[in-house]
Amino acid sequence: MERTGSEAIPDDISDRDREGFYRVLYGRRDVRSEFRPDPIPNEVLRRVLAAAHHAPSVGFMQPWNFVIVRDPTVRARVRQNFEEVRREGAEQFSGERRRLYDSLKLEGILDAPLNVCVTCDPDRAGPAVLGRVRVREVDVYSTCLAVENLWLAARAEGLGVGWVSILDADRVRELLGIPAGVVPIAYLTIGYVRGFPPRPELETKGWARRAPLDDHVFLDRWGARYPTEVGAPEAGVGPSERPRRPG
Amino acid sequence: MERTGSEAIPDDISDRDREGFYRVLYGRRDVRSEFRPDPIPNEVLRRVLAAAHHAPSVGFMQPWNFVIVRDPTVRARVRQNFEEVRREGAEQFSGERRRLYDSLKLEGILDAPLNVCVTCDPDRAGPAVLGRVRVREVDVYSTCLAVENLWLAARAEGLGVGWVSILDADRVRELLGIPAGVVPIAYLTIGYVRGFPPRPELETKGWARRAPLDDHVFLDRWGARYPTEVGAPEAGVGPSERPRRPG
Repeated sequence: MERTGSEAIPDDISDRDREGFYRVLYGRRDVRSEFRPDPIPNEVLRRVLAAAHHAPSVGFMQPWNFVIVRDPTVRARVRQNFEEVRREGAEQFSGERRRLYDSLKLEGILDAPLNVCVTCDPDRAGPAVLGRVRVREVDVYSTCLAVENLWLAARAEGLGVGWVSILDADRVRELLGIPAGVVPIAYLTIGYVRGFPPRPELETKGWARRAPLDDHVFLDRWGARYPTEVGAPEAGVGPSERPRRPG
Repeated sequence: MERTGSEAIPDDISDRDREGFYRVLYGRRDVRSEFRPDPIPNEVLRRVLAAAHHAPSVGFMQPWNFVIVRDPTVRARVRQNFEEVRREGAEQFSGERRRLYDSLKLEGILDAPLNVCVTCDPDRAGPAVLGRVRVREVDVYSTCLAVENLWLAARAEGLGVGWVSILDADRVRELLGIPAGVVPIAYLTIGYVRGFPPRPELETKGWARRAPLDDHVFLDRWGARYPTEVGAPEAGVGPSERPRRPG
């Protein structure tokens, strides 16, 4: 891989490291249907949580907690809440779209061996947080960064993760005994899988398409297309966006 | 590395890939002081943005946009806004803490060759979004996942990223011409660096410490410590949390 502009930088990330990183990133999926019940070894789960814990956070406040949900009774109650909210969510759609929605498996709460609720405590570092001034939600943003670290590290370990957003945060808080001030951000299901599909399920099932990257990038001002000389558009999106393997 | 519980899974992620992934993850830093002005080659920036664009999103709605800010005049105005909000933020602290705050370099807006504003458009997929029911902010959460993908991919490419949260989102919206309904989530600075420090700057400067992972993990219920038999606590945190190299 060309290292234009960076030849002089001593860097402990090799081309081979970068290739491994991209394989993990592009191999990550949002898993709902493919979970296997096999337990997750302690040391593997711990590596995944440690990766999440090493996410960046505003003012280094580390506002996250991870509630591992193993108890089948608790998970069954979460699943009941999912069913209720799923029905409510279905009302958004009608006709063919509704039929497709109803046919999708949207959670693996009981299929996966573990669930993980990732929370954000805005008071973790007291009222004064370096970097939290006009935008109060930066602690929530930090917690989401930890979620993505967790998700990618899980993929690196051969574990699938699904984010179940079709829940009521207050009910999740109640079921897990989470204090009033603490916000449940992500309810994740995690486990080994029968396989990682090559594309997102919502894409293969025809729910939505991956947009062309160029439609999402502007230069200096919203709406100003990123010109060719700055970011030369290459071939199409999707798999062809994957970096070429070095060497 | 032991593959307990997963021997039977065909998985295209090798131990070497996983090692590379973890090197990137643990080598990532929030950069403010170390930027070099060297330009970022088009194909490198494009790989970083493609990685961000391949983050998971609720209902596959891909609510993010990336406004690349190169224009020095625009960046100077953003920096003016930073200065104003930085002074406001300083009022949170007094005494030794205030002196430390004032001594920290908190942004590299003009030092880095590019800034990137990552935004969230809640209307990207119309009013009905699969998975967005009781928790409306899941689109914002998705955007943050893209930010972490961008941050890690940048690290894989030898690029440093700093998140400048000490800004006024409305002012950023105005300066970049972002429509009223679209939310500026992250204002990032990105560029090659003189080096990646081994630890977060806020840690080495004594602002905050990394908390022990065990303090952040509960089992089945908030406050219930994660027992030894589930997640055997190993040695201390920090570098010793890094996965052992396989083989």
